[in-house]
Parts: sequence; structure tokens; C-alpha cells
Amino acid sequence: MAIKRRKISIIGSGFTGATTALMVAQKELGDVVLVDIPDMEGPTKGKALDMMESTPVQGVDSRIIGTSSYEDTKDSDVVVITAGIARKPGMSRDDLVSTNAKIMKSVTKEIVKHSPDCYIIVLTNPADAMTYTVFKESGLPKNRVIGQSGVLDTARFRTFIAEELNLSVEDVTGFVLGGHGDDMVPLIRYSAAGGVPLSTLISPERLEEIVERTRKGGGEIVGLLGNGSAYYAPAASLTQMVEAIVKDKKRVIPTIAYLEGEYGHHDLYLGVPTILGGDGIEKVIELDLTDEEQDQLNKSADSVRHVMDALPTA
Amino acid sequence: MAIKRRKISIIGSGFTGATTALMVAQKELGDVVLVDIPDMEGPTKGKALDMMESTPVQGVDSRIIGTSSYEDTKDSDVVVITAGIARKPGMSRDDLVSTNAKIMKSVTKEIVKHSPDCYIIVLTNPADAMTYTVFKESGLPKNRVIGQSGVLDTARFRTFIAEELNLSVEDVTGFVLGGHGDDMVPLIRYSAAGGVPLSTLISPERLEEIVERTRKGGGEIVGLLGNGSAYYAPAASLTQMVEAIVKDKKRVIPTIAYLEGEYGHHDLYLGVPTILGGDGIEKVIELDLTDEEQDQLNKSADSVRHVMDALPTA
Amino acid sequence: MAIKRRKISIIGSGFTGATTALMVAQKELGDVVLVDIPDMEGPTKGKALDMMESTPVQGVDSRIIGTSSYEDTKDSDVVVITAGIARKPGMSRDDLVSTNAKIMKSVTKEIVKHSPDCYIIVLTNPADAMTYTVFKESGLPKNRVIGQSGVLDTARFRTFIAEELNLSVEDVTGFVLGGHGDDMVPLIRYSAAGGVPLSTLISPERLEEIVERTRKGGGEIVGLLGNGSAYYAPAASLTQMVEAIVKDKKRVIPTIAYLEGEYGHHDLYLGVPTILGGDGIEKVIELDLTDEEQDQLNKSADSVRHVMDALPTA
Amino acid sequence: MAIKRRKISIIGSGFTGATTALMVAQKELGDVVLVDIPDMEGPTKGKALDMMESTPVQGVDSRIIGTSSYEDTKDSDVVVITAGIARKPGMSRDDLVSTNAKIMKSVTKEIVKHSPDCYIIVLTNPADAMTYTVFKESGLPKNRVIGQSGVLDTARFRTFIAEELNLSVEDVTGFVLGGHGDDMVPLIRYSAAGGVPLSTLISPERLEEIVERTRKGGGEIVGLLGNGSAYYAPAASLTQMVEAIVKDKKRVIPTIAYLEGEYGHHDLYLGVPTILGGDGIEKVIELDLTDEEQDQLNKSADSVRHVMDALPTA
Repeated sequence: MAIKRRKISIIGSGFTGATTALMVAQKELGDVVLVDIPDMEGPTKGKALDMMESTPVQGVDSRIIGTSSYEDTKDSDVVVITAGIARKPGMSRDDLVSTNAKIMKSVTKEIVKHSPDCYIIVLTNPADAMTYTVFKESGLPKNRVIGQSGVLDTARFRTFIAEELNLSVEDVTGFVLGGHGDDMVPLIRYSAAGGVPLSTLISPERLEEIVERTRKGGGEIVGLLGNGSAYYAPAASLTQMVEAIVKDKKRVIPTIAYLEGEYGHHDLYLGVPTILGGDGIEKVIELDLTDEEQDQLNKSADSVRHVMDALPTA
Repeated sequence: MAIKRRKISIIGSGFTGATTALMVAQKELGDVVLVDIPDMEGPTKGKALDMMESTPVQGVDSRIIGTSSYEDTKDSDVVVITAGIARKPGMSRDDLVSTNAKIMKSVTKEIVKHSPDCYIIVLTNPADAMTYTVFKESGLPKNRVIGQSGVLDTARFRTFIAEELNLSVEDVTGFVLGGHGDDMVPLIRYSAAGGVPLSTLISPERLEEIVERTRKGGGEIVGLLGNGSAYYAPAASLTQMVEAIVKDKKRVIPTIAYLEGEYGHHDLYLGVPTILGGDGIEKVIELDLTDEEQDQLNKSADSVRHVMDALPTA
Repeated sequence: MAIKRRKISIIGSGFTGATTALMVAQKELGDVVLVDIPDMEGPTKGKALDMMESTPVQGVDSRIIGTSSYEDTKDSDVVVITAGIARKPGMSRDDLVSTNAKIMKSVTKEIVKHSPDCYIIVLTNPADAMTYTVFKESGLPKNRVIGQSGVLDTARFRTFIAEELNLSVEDVTGFVLGGHGDDMVPLIRYSAAGGVPLSTLISPERLEEIVERTRKGGGEIVGLLGNGSAYYAPAASLTQMVEAIVKDKKRVIPTIAYLEGEYGHHDLYLGVPTILGGDGIEKVIELDLTDEEQDQLNKSADSVRHVMDALPTA
Repeated sequence: MAIKRRKISIIGSGFTGATTALMVAQKELGDVVLVDIPDMEGPTKGKALDMMESTPVQGVDSRIIGTSSYEDTKDSDVVVITAGIARKPGMSRDDLVSTNAKIMKSVTKEIVKHSPDCYIIVLTNPADAMTYTVFKESGLPKNRVIGQSGVLDTARFRTFIAEELNLSVEDVTGFVLGGHGDDMVPLIRYSAAGGVPLSTLISPERLEEIVERTRKGGGEIVGLLGNGSAYYAPAASLTQMVEAIVKDKKRVIPTIAYLEGEYGHHDLYLGVPTILGGDGIEKVIELDLTDEEQDQLNKSADSVRHVMDALPTA
């Protein structure tokens, strides 16, 4: 059998989806199918063609197509879901959850119909509940359905620390558990610059400020943009996850993983450290938490469960 | 003296400007300053910060800042101008030219005030006339003011040929002179796939269709997007030009260059093959043209001159 | 099924084999198995381990192992053969051919035993005859057995042209048919700098000198090294071929391909332009040759046939 | 002023020097000058030309030249010293130190004569004493003379840990102080996999074995190769240091730095964590050591001082 390129489909051709398509193509991780609803077919095809026309100059061989037909996603290795609505002023959170859950279900149905053996990465907010929804709807094993949250939070934390210390971002490592925002559980004692624990480099007060800025990192971008939310760092985070799977890199990456007893939680998708490789989430890494950290993680889990109460049944 | 990173400033934080900032940062060509008018300061800062937060995940050390103050561009090595308005329905071309020329002048004044020794690359349409305007306003020598046009046209042509023949985009070379669209002068006999002349691989009729699609390549994207124009391939093209200068690569690239007798034209910026390196346009390459090609190029030059008649004097 | 990394085995752990292993790993094309005879097991393991220890610093996830057991090559996607002896002073060419042919046979037997579905790239000299030997011994279809010759010759030619014109090597394209050295058939009219035909940039006399230097390019390095032959450029050439297959790039690359009538030759491996992709040699590109070029190619073919007369029968 | 490529000179064209030249060129960090003694001029030129001929295929624009004349190193930004002899059987360590110190002196004199404003990285063994010798001879400020040791040791440690845990090498961080081999001071508590402390992932006994293997890492390669020592991982380590300087990356990297009171030592080059950027060693990072760690570091320092006693005076 001839060797074929990997195939990565990206559902949702908005800023995050399109930027993810670009980054996946730039790394020649495989051919890219950018999918959106029929109403968006023109822009979806336009973005894909524009990207495709950038490939000779970028020196990469990745075919990028835009489509509104899931048949084009047939036999994808990895599918990334960025589709969904953002919360609008006046919209209740339950409405958001309910609407996006419906989108997850219909999208997932189409995905597994054409790629019954794929890995799915979910970005759509609230990511914990949406990943759970996709998991249930897909019928795929738990290692094949993965949510994004911690890579982005960690990236922001690392950026702020590198800036504070005027160091290479490559040498700052960070570590978070739990969900976005208030539910984020930063493990400062597991964060370092060039291996040196942050606590020896930055005062506790300043560290707390940086943690707080990280918590509110999504809101900071929303506030600046005025209209819309972050997409560059989210797309880079998704791309790293795709790469970890497609290249079987076995990266140690915080993802939203399905728990069956780990960290004391069951039947829940929650942000935890995992090993991400050619078989998706190959392992959930269990850390010894302090009581305070475990309390925070439990709070984060409660928060996810609360959101999930708003999920439409059946 | 310590070694410092190169500095690239990008004027205009719209899709093309922002995507160029991303690609320049991805290649670690230097630190990036994304500039827009005060009214756009929020979104400009937001995009820059979002990109900055992607750098730990992408593994690159490039500082990206958003600003509305030209003081932040101080001592730039290269400045890319993407600012300007797009033609709106009902707007005459002369109005477009006149408005963008005013923007070029004010922008250029600020650029050279803070970076009197920089190289400037102009994307704003109509690029030939806008590059001329920047050249005159800047007082810089001709090799330091460069317009973009041919890299993008060639990229589109290469994409279509690679698709037609099902080949790597890396092995298709193309060649255009003159301006965008109807003014484009494709030199088919200088275009090849893996060194093999296209005329031996594709029928003349099909080649003519592909040339025609290339001419209308910008319009094709506009038509698909419905609202807005191409930015991925333009940004990649600009990035290649920045890289050629910053790394002194001496690439053979079609650019909009100032002519002083080459190809029979004087005091005109026109799309021609050039060598682009650490001193900007280091050479205009003069080809022997057929009579038909020279006629087409003259027509393209006439077209540029006609546009330039609409330039505001003084 | 989980996604697995590609696997590339390299037979022969001398300078060329080891450098190819390095370059394949640097590009994360897959895991690498470096194989040599039991007598060389120590150095083979040593080089592989040393390379492996460079991966954290280079930031690549490729496992590299050294071995003398072909079982470690099991299920390779691509196998590169660099094994063989170099001609020593006093050794007749027939002896060289005969010795290396025996090595090819024994090596091929082992390769296909453990990877019955692989692609094989042959570097060992004389490459045309050795590729033929591997083809016959392997029982694989012709598209799966590929010889290296033209990528290296072209790389040398491009280097010399880029130096002559002080241009980026990325913009110089070259084209050769036939074998190495005196058998090389350079197609100058298909060679260009940035699309501009070389004949318009360099005088015929100077071009002839550069062609001549290319013909003797291997000898030039041998002469300088004093002891041994080139390995950096050969390794880079092999790596490009591996990449074209593993990433299904469909590159237009001169390779040593099995001819069944193309260019008027039958049952012969000869250097010709091909499309190299996920199914190996997907196509032999037939060019219209001038009478002189066809004559030269015929001479090159005669030369290959002459060498093949020295092949041991059965 | 036109933008010029950086220039990196590498003294010593043996395996490590040549491989460093290759890796520096691959990353387009600048043009490369490979220097050796007149007796080695042929091989030096041969390796450089061979590498140069690989650049079109690798798609990089870096000029690589081989030479025996230091005039070709004029105005280098960074100079890497790999020259020197290896200890041969029967040779006393004092003889080794004394011979290499003489080489350092003569080489340094030539370097600073032609590049009075460069940064020098020293690999030659014993690296602590040799870096000191270069520092004294050069008259350069301490931040401009840097020894290599810890990057390589850390790379080996990271490789072994990643293999042990079957994880991406990119996610394992390590940390060593002091010298090579027995003088190495591993700070296990500052080493982690994906931020998770190694002590929670690997048993103390197994960790000790891995530390021991790291200590003997150089010898392991020597033993396998039979003839010669490691060069791939050392070259990658040197390249990372060159990149940190040339791109002003401000990496947190263990280097051999000149101490003036840090860690309780004076007038000594010792392996410590540093920030390496566009001004060389921009900072020595002082960690709180445990008593045991401080003891080990003192022992390592004693060991360096002992070696330095064998340095020829004046």
C-alpha cells in the first residue's frame, strides 16, 4: 500500500478554526479539511484557497480544502471541533451550554459517520462539558476524545513569566489543572524557569498577580479586541495537540480527559496532566496534590458538574 | 556591542498585517511591532498579545507588541506597509488612489522619522503607485523601497499548476512581470515544473485558462469570502520578502522596483524580476523579452502611469 | 488503531548512512534504525546513541537505534541502502561491481524478509547497476526500488551556479539525466535561476566549466578529503527522497528508475526525471530530447549496460 | 548600511567542529567559517564544500567555507573552539592540559586579532580550565567567553529519562552543576517531566542509576565507538549556545561561566546555570543549594583548580 498523508479535519472555519488549519498545514502534519455549515461555504472555501495559495511561498505540501460537506472529511486521522457560538450579551450560560451541546451532537454524528476510527479534539466552550457531550455522542473510547484547556492556560502563564523575567519562553514551564478562569488550579510548585522553581525567582505577591492575570487571560484579549475573542494562542494549542497525536510524540500535556477514579472523580471530563501520543490520551498522570490543591480541583469539578446539569438530556 | 534581534514593524493591523506579524514571528526573523491608528489601538494590542501568548507553544522567541505610537518602531530594520483602505462599492478608483496616497505619505513620514535607515515594503493597493509615493516621501534610496506584487501572483500561478499536475508546489516555478490582474504579464516560457517547461506538460488552452485564473486570483478570493479580500497568501509573500532582506538571502524574486531605464522605462515603479537581499533590491534583472511580452509590459507601465495621474501633487 | 511513527531503516552506518540517519531524525520523518554488520555493531550503536542524545537539544522526537540485526528493521516504510565498499587503489571496476552486487543481494534478502512492503532507495555505487540488482533480488514492483544519483548531481550544479551568480541556492534549478560523472547528461536549457534561463545569465564557456566541475564533483571532494568521499550532500539527497515518499510530496526529482521503453530503453535502471511520492516512483517524466541529448543518454545507458555485464549471474 | 548575515567561525574541523558547522548552517544562523591547521586544509575545505553542496537540497542559504587562514574569520560574531587533542593511552592528564592550553592560547590570539568584538564558546577538554585559559589570553570581558559542559550532560540525562518513561524528550527538563563526569552535580529536585518532579515518577534507585549513566555518558560512547568520542550531541549543544547568542534568546542554560563570588567561588570557570543571550552570559543564576549540593559543587571546583595547576604559566 502506498504511503498516504495524514488527514486532519477542522470543524468551524472561524478565526480559531482557520488559524488552526494554517498552523497544521505549515507543519505539514497532513492534508487539511476545513468544514463549516452551508451558509458559510463561500468564506470557508475562500479561506482554504487563500491558505493553499500561500503554500508555494511557505514551501509546504499540504492540501487545504474548504467545504460544507462532511463527506470530504472521510477517513480523517484527527478531527478538531471549534464550532459553536460565543456567549452574547444577555444570553444565559444555560442557553450557551444547551445550544453548543446541540451543535456538538450534530457535528459528532457526522464526524464518526465518516471517520469511525478518528481522534477528536474539542475546543468549544465550555470545553469540559462539550468534550463530555462529544464523548457520549461519538461512542468512541475515552482515549480518543480529548478536550483543550490547559495548553492555552499554560501558554499564557509561560508568556507572562518569561516577560517578567526577560527570559526565553522556551525555558519556562508551567502547570495547571482544572478548568479555565476561576476554575483554574495553577500548580506553582511545578512551574519553573530553566528548571529553577519560580518561587525562588519571583515574589509570592507578584506570582499571585501573574496567576490572576492568567485566570483572566481570555477576558483580557476579549477586552482589547472589543469584538471577538483570542484565536492565535488557542490555534497554536490545538496544533500542538494534533502534532502530538499525528507524530506519536507522547507529550506530557494538560488536557481535558475522562476520569474514572483519577483524582477522586468519576464519569467526568476534567483538566489534568496526560500523555498525548499516537493513541490519543495514553495516560492520565496522577500527582500528589496538597489538600489545598485537591480542594481547588474538587471545586473545579463541581463547577463542571454544575454546567453539565444544563446539558440537554438525550 | 551585544547582538540584538532584528526589528520588523508592520503598519496596519488588519488581517494581512496581523498574519504577516504572525509569520515573521514564527520564523524568528526578529521582534515585531504591529502599528495601527489610535482608534484601533485595542484590537492591535489584543492581536499582538494573543500572538505573543502563542509563542511558548510554537517554541519561538519573538516579542510581538501592538501599538498606535510610531515611537515603538524606532530603529526598525524593515517596515512593511499594509495600511490603507479597500475600494468600496461606488468609490471611484481616483478616490481610492488619492486616499491611500495620503495614508502612505503620513505613514512614511512617521516611519523614516524613527527609522531613517530602514527598508520599506509596500503592499497597499494600487501597489505600483503607492510604492512610488512612499519612495518620494521617504527620501530613501530606491533600493530601500520595494513593492509587493509578483510573489503573490506567482504563488497563485504555482498553486494552480501544482494542482493541475498533482505535483509538489515546491517544484513549480513561475514568472510574472507587470502589475496585478489585467496588467499581469506571465512569462510562461520561464515557468516550469521540476525544471520541465510547462508547455510540454499542459496544453496551451489549459495554460491560458490557468493564466486567466491567476489574473483574477484576487477577485476569486473576494468573491468567495463575500466580505473582505485575501490575506494568507499576501502575508506569506510579504514574509518571504522580509526574510530575503533580513537574512541577506539574495533571492530572485519579482518585486515592484524603481526603474531608471530598465525595460525601457524611467521614473516608474513596476513589477520586474529582482535580486532581494540584505541591501534591499540589489539588482533589477533584465530579460530579453519577445515583442509581445514587451508590448504587454509597456501596457502595464501605461496603466501604472495612468493611476499615478490620480496621485495628489505635493 | 493507534497512529504510529513512520520507520526508516538505513543499511550501512558509515559517514553517509549515519549522516542520513541524523537528517531523517532532524526532520522527524520517523524512527530510524541504523544497521551494519556484526563487526561494526559497537560503532553503529555508538553513533545512534550519540544522535539520540542530541534530540532533546534539537527538539525532535525520533528514536534512533543502532543494530546488526535485521529484525530491528521489521515493518520499515522506507529502507535506504548505503552499504558497500569503495573502489580501492588497484581494484578493478569489475571487482567493485561484483563485490557490491553480492552485498546488495544479501542485504536485500534481509530487508524484504522483514519489510515485504517497503520502499528501497539505493545509493551504493555504481548506483544504476546496484539498483537493478536490488530490484531483481527483492521481487518488489519497480516503483518501490529507486536509485539515487541526480539529486546529488543537481545539488552540486545548483551550488556552483548560485556561487557564480551570488544568488540564493533556493532559486537555482538544475536538471540532469543519465549517470554520475562522464555519463551525466546535463540539460542546461532546463536549468534556471529564479526562472531565468542560465544561458541568459552565464556565458557558454563558463557554463561548460561549471558542468565539467559538476561531472567531477565527487572526485573534487575525494581529492580534498584525501581519505574518503563526500557524505553531507549525498545524505541530504537521500533524505529528500525519503521525505518525498514518507510525506507523499510528489516531488519532481531525478532518480534512477526502471525503464520499460521510456527514452527508448528497456529493462534498465537509468537516471531520469520522475515523480516521487507516497507510492515511490509514481511516474517517469518523458522529455523531448534534442538529438545530441538523446545520444548522450544512450551513451550513458550503454555505460550502465557495460557495468551490468560484470554483475554476477544468479 | 546593508543588513549582513551573522558570521560564525568554528576552530577545529574534526567530527565535532564539522557537525557543528552543519547544524549552524542548517538553522541559517549565519555564514560559517571552518578553520583548521594548514596540514588539515584539504579535508577542511572538502568537508565545507560537501556541506555547501547540501544546501540547495536542504533549502538553506548559509555560505560554508573551509580554511587554514584566520583572516577568513575576520569580524566573526561568534567563534566556537573545538580544537585540541584527545587524551591518548599512556598520556598523563597534565600533558593533556598543557598541550591543549598551548593550543587554546595560540588559537585565541588569532581569533581576537581578527574579531576583537566576538563571543567565544569553548568545548575543548578539560573545558573549565580551557575556558579559563581562553578568557585570560583573549582579554575579553567575562560575559564573552563561555564554556560548554552542562547542555550536553543535561541532554544525555533528558534522553535517558525520556526513554525510561517513554515520553517526548521535549518535555523532560534536567539540571546539572559542576563539571563533567565525576564532578557533575545533578540537581534532581530541579528536574522534571512535563513539570512533574522526577522523584514522583521514578524510584530513587533507578534515578541514581540514570544519574550514574549520565556521569559516564561520554565514556559510554567512547566505549561503543571504539575509536573516537561523541560528536553529534556535543555539536547540537554548541549549536544551541550559538543560537541563544545570535538570536538573543536569553535561554536559561547551564554553561561554564566565570565566577566572582557566585556560589562562593572566585576567579574560576565553573558549570552553573546562566542566562545566555545577545550579550553572551548575561547573568549567573544563583540557586539555594542544599549542604550536600554545595559540598559537591565545592568538590567540583576543587577538581577544576587542581587541573588548572597543570596550566603552563605565562
